[in-house]
Amino acid sequence: MPIRTSLCDLFNIEHPVLLAPMAGVSGGALAAAVSRGGGLGLIGGGYGDAGWLKRELDAAGDARIGVGFITWSLAREPSLLDLALSRNPAALMLSFGDFKPFLHRIRHGNTKLIVQVQTLDQAREAVEAGVDAIVAQGTEAGGHGGARATLPFVPAVVDIAQGIPVIAAGGIADGRGLAAGLALGASGALCGTTFFASDESLASENAKQAAVRATGDDTERSSVFDLARGLDWPAGWNIRTMRNAFTRRWSGDMIGLKQNLTAEQARFNVATTAGDTDIAAVIVGEAADLIGNRGPAQATLHQMISQAEEVLQRLGQLVEPDKED
Amino acid sequence: MPIRTSLCDLFNIEHPVLLAPMAGVSGGALAAAVSRGGGLGLIGGGYGDAGWLKRELDAAGDARIGVGFITWSLAREPSLLDLALSRNPAALMLSFGDFKPFLHRIRHGNTKLIVQVQTLDQAREAVEAGVDAIVAQGTEAGGHGGARATLPFVPAVVDIAQGIPVIAAGGIADGRGLAAGLALGASGALCGTTFFASDESLASENAKQAAVRATGDDTERSSVFDLARGLDWPAGWNIRTMRNAFTRRWSGDMIGLKQNLTAEQARFNVATTAGDTDIAAVIVGEAADLIGNRGPAQATLHQMISQAEEVLQRLGQLVEPDKED
Repeated sequence: MPIRTSLCDLFNIEHPVLLAPMAGVSGGALAAAVSRGGGLGLIGGGYGDAGWLKRELDAAGDARIGVGFITWSLAREPSLLDLALSRNPAALMLSFGDFKPFLHRIRHGNTKLIVQVQTLDQAREAVEAGVDAIVAQGTEAGGHGGARATLPFVPAVVDIAQGIPVIAAGGIADGRGLAAGLALGASGALCGTTFFASDESLASENAKQAAVRATGDDTERSSVFDLARGLDWPAGWNIRTMRNAFTRRWSGDMIGLKQNLTAEQARFNVATTAGDTDIAAVIVGEAADLIGNRGPAQATLHQMISQAEEVLQRLGQLVEPDKED
Repeated sequence: MPIRTSLCDLFNIEHPVLLAPMAGVSGGALAAAVSRGGGLGLIGGGYGDAGWLKRELDAAGDARIGVGFITWSLAREPSLLDLALSRNPAALMLSFGDFKPFLHRIRHGNTKLIVQVQTLDQAREAVEAGVDAIVAQGTEAGGHGGARATLPFVPAVVDIAQGIPVIAAGGIADGRGLAAGLALGASGALCGTTFFASDESLASENAKQAAVRATGDDTERSSVFDLARGLDWPAGWNIRTMRNAFTRRWSGDMIGLKQNLTAEQARFNVATTAGDTDIAAVIVGEAADLIGNRGPAQATLHQMISQAEEVLQRLGQLVEPDKED
């Protein structure tokens, strides 16, 4: 029997798993693959590139997908929201910034609004605004995030969510993590790292190989790559990536990086183009330990679901009266 | 039906929950209360005070308890191990440092050896040494710890533990967290914060009140209080506490704190004696959100267990074939 939660009803999906809208990684093909597998794929709206977004929306074909935006970036390029809404997406997810200016436009159609939070105050704001679902994201997540960890943060958000479905994010890459999220009171999980190395992911081949080899111990949060990419991220969020020669050189010396920024940005850009993961950013989270075989995203999703079913069955038997069978 | 796991068999306990050996907080009365409630209480061996340890071992009376040591501190005062072993404890837990020099002495008796780890390399070392149980501790834990988060770290440790029971620690303060730990493959949980404000805890009354009021957003990791206490902690671990005026002043300026150390230590010591939690350390973790009513530790433990039973039942029903009842 499949795992059905309120999230399945909210988004009309079979499995309570969402693809995280990873910028530059979660394109139309990956989002469509997750949606066709029974979850909900979210295209990563990224940093204001309308051409990219249009191409990836097209690439999703007739799959029912959603789109995620970096809210402070969307505020600078709000026309991207119109572009996304014109495709009637199943969901729009807003993360990192003030979502309220966009509320009215999103809530006019059938599109569900998901807001991602990293603090309890942000969660309260989302509850008060009456969003459709809240992603409670832990610091172990790859990419941008905050300081709270998933395991204690999710139930704290559930306790203030007043029945709004909470989606656990950060560190969930297999059926054990999904089952843990459900135990914490979440209605499902948002997963990035586990799909990063999928066939359909837009990450470079070198980055995929590095991610599969990596362990969670090899990742850290810093602002090194935001500076290198010239991204003006607000305080309160930084980015979890794999450690490499570039983070080892600069994560303890941000002042030095600023002083050498032009040269270091050039070095970073060359490495990124060349797929040199010793300098370029490989944006995965602590769940890197748990990603194994590569392949199509749908296989990963179905493996996660079937493992979660086994775990839930085992857990249920821990408290069932003894049966003779 | 109670939740029985391999941990219950290993320690001969009813509930798979251990009291974390919080220095200066987990004394004999608290450890005994958790053990008498059906879990296993660990007295916090602290920083080399034999008189304190003897008094607290006495205070546990005839309860079957364990003792936890800070390994690098024990290495400086190894006679404390003899003192603990002379009481034939159910378990000895070693955290933060090289446990191998103590292995031989501990494993002579009936005492089980628990080793707490914060990285995969440390976990591998514990597995190779054949310890009896491994605590996989996440960064959301109160007190000293590392950088990995509980939710992705526990299954990664389970995957290399070769069947040695893994105990989840960090962020677990209620039945949802315990159930999540079991979903991740752990055999039980080690909990500190949830017992910090118990009647039997040795924390100051002001600290208990502050902990109950606190949220997980109010905590952070730093080395401020180690410096203030003159504790020579090795690199790789720092301490999660509540934020207060003292951390706000110094956590971003450790060099300044070192330059003003004598005066600041004096100020810190006065505040600690006076129970002034705006300067003294309140050592709790992100699970501070989840601790509610104060009372005897046994009530907290039983509430956790009964909530976990409900969660496990609910999870089991998610995948059960439909029943007519």
